[in-house]
Amino acid sequence: MGPRQATRLAFFLTSLDKATLRELESSLGALRELDRCDECFFLKHEDEPRCAVCNDPHRMSDIIAILEKETDLLTFETAGVFRGKYFILGKLAEKGVLETAQKLRLERLKQTLGKRGAPLRELIIALNPTSIGDFTADLIAKEFGGLAKKITRLSRGIPTGGEIEFADDASLASSFEHRD
Amino acid sequence: MGPRQATRLAFFLTSLDKATLRELESSLGALRELDRCDECFFLKHEDEPRCAVCNDPHRMSDIIAILEKETDLLTFETAGVFRGKYFILGKLAEKGVLETAQKLRLERLKQTLGKRGAPLRELIIALNPTSIGDFTADLIAKEFGGLAKKITRLSRGIPTGGEIEFADDASLASSFEHRD
Repeated sequence: MGPRQATRLAFFLTSLDKATLRELESSLGALRELDRCDECFFLKHEDEPRCAVCNDPHRMSDIIAILEKETDLLTFETAGVFRGKYFILGKLAEKGVLETAQKLRLERLKQTLGKRGAPLRELIIALNPTSIGDFTADLIAKEFGGLAKKITRLSRGIPTGGEIEFADDASLASSFEHRD
Repeated sequence: MGPRQATRLAFFLTSLDKATLRELESSLGALRELDRCDECFFLKHEDEPRCAVCNDPHRMSDIIAILEKETDLLTFETAGVFRGKYFILGKLAEKGVLETAQKLRLERLKQTLGKRGAPLRELIIALNPTSIGDFTADLIAKEFGGLAKKITRLSRGIPTGGEIEFADDASLASSFEHRD
C-alpha cells in the first residue's frame, strides 16, 4: 500500500462510529489468533490442531491439490469443484526458484505421504498455467513420482468470455482436445 | 477506420516507392478474384470450385467444425490441431439472433449433410465461449441433432498465462475436470 492510499485509509478510520471501530478492533484481535495448518499450510485458528478443510471428515484424503496461494484455495472452494484436500506451497518467486520455506513445506508433504503406507490416489499440481507454474510443476512431479499413483495438472483452455481468434496455441489445442 | 487513421494511411501511401505501389496494386487486384467456398463459406479463388481446405483430400470429411469467423479458421490452422473440415457461420450479431445469410448457410450445411447418406461422425460447434456463442451453439445443436453421431463443443479452461485465483467458476471447473 502506498502513502496516499494509507493516508486515505487513516482518514476513513477516523470517520467510523464507535461501534464499527470496536468491531474492527475485535476482528484485528481475531487475526492475531490465526496460525498455519501443520498439514496443508492454509490458515487455521491457533486453538485448532488443523485447518477447517483438513479437519473435515467428509473430504477425500487420498487426493491432494497443490496450490500456490491461499486465495487459490478460496477460488477452488467457491467454484465447488473439488472434494479432496489441499496443500499450499506459497507464492512462487518470479525467478522460478523455490524458497527455503517452500522446500520445507514440500518436505513436510513428502513425510505426510510417506506415513500413509499406500501411495496417494492422485496428486493434482494446480499451479497457474504460467512459465513459472509449469517449471515448478515439472520439478514437483519429478520429486513426488513414487508417492502418488497419478500426478495431474489442470488443463488449459479458452476461458468464459474469451475468443478463439485470440487464443494461444496451447489453450486452443487443449480446448479442442477436451471438447465434449 | 476513422478520418485521422485514413489520412495517415493516405500520406503513408504517397511515401511508397513505385515498385511497392505496383505490388500493392496487384494485391488489391487479387482481392477482387476472391469468392466464397460453396461448401464451407471460407474464401477461395474465383476460378476454383472450392476452398483450399475443402479441396484437400487428406482432410477428414466426416468431422466438421462450425466456426464464427474466417480468422478463427486461421487460428485453428496455426495451432494445427484439427484435420477435419470447417464451416464458417459468419460473425454473430450482439443480439444473439441469426441473420438471414447465416440461416441460409446453415440450411446449406444441412443439405450437404443430408446428401452424405450416413450421419456425420462429429460436428464440433467451435463458437466462442461467450453468452451469444453458447446461445447459438444450443440452437445449432438442436437443429442438427439427427445429422451427426456426436455434437461437441470446445471445453473452457484457464488459458496460458492465466491465474487460478481470477478464473471464473466454469473455466476452473472445466480445467479441473479435464486435468491430465
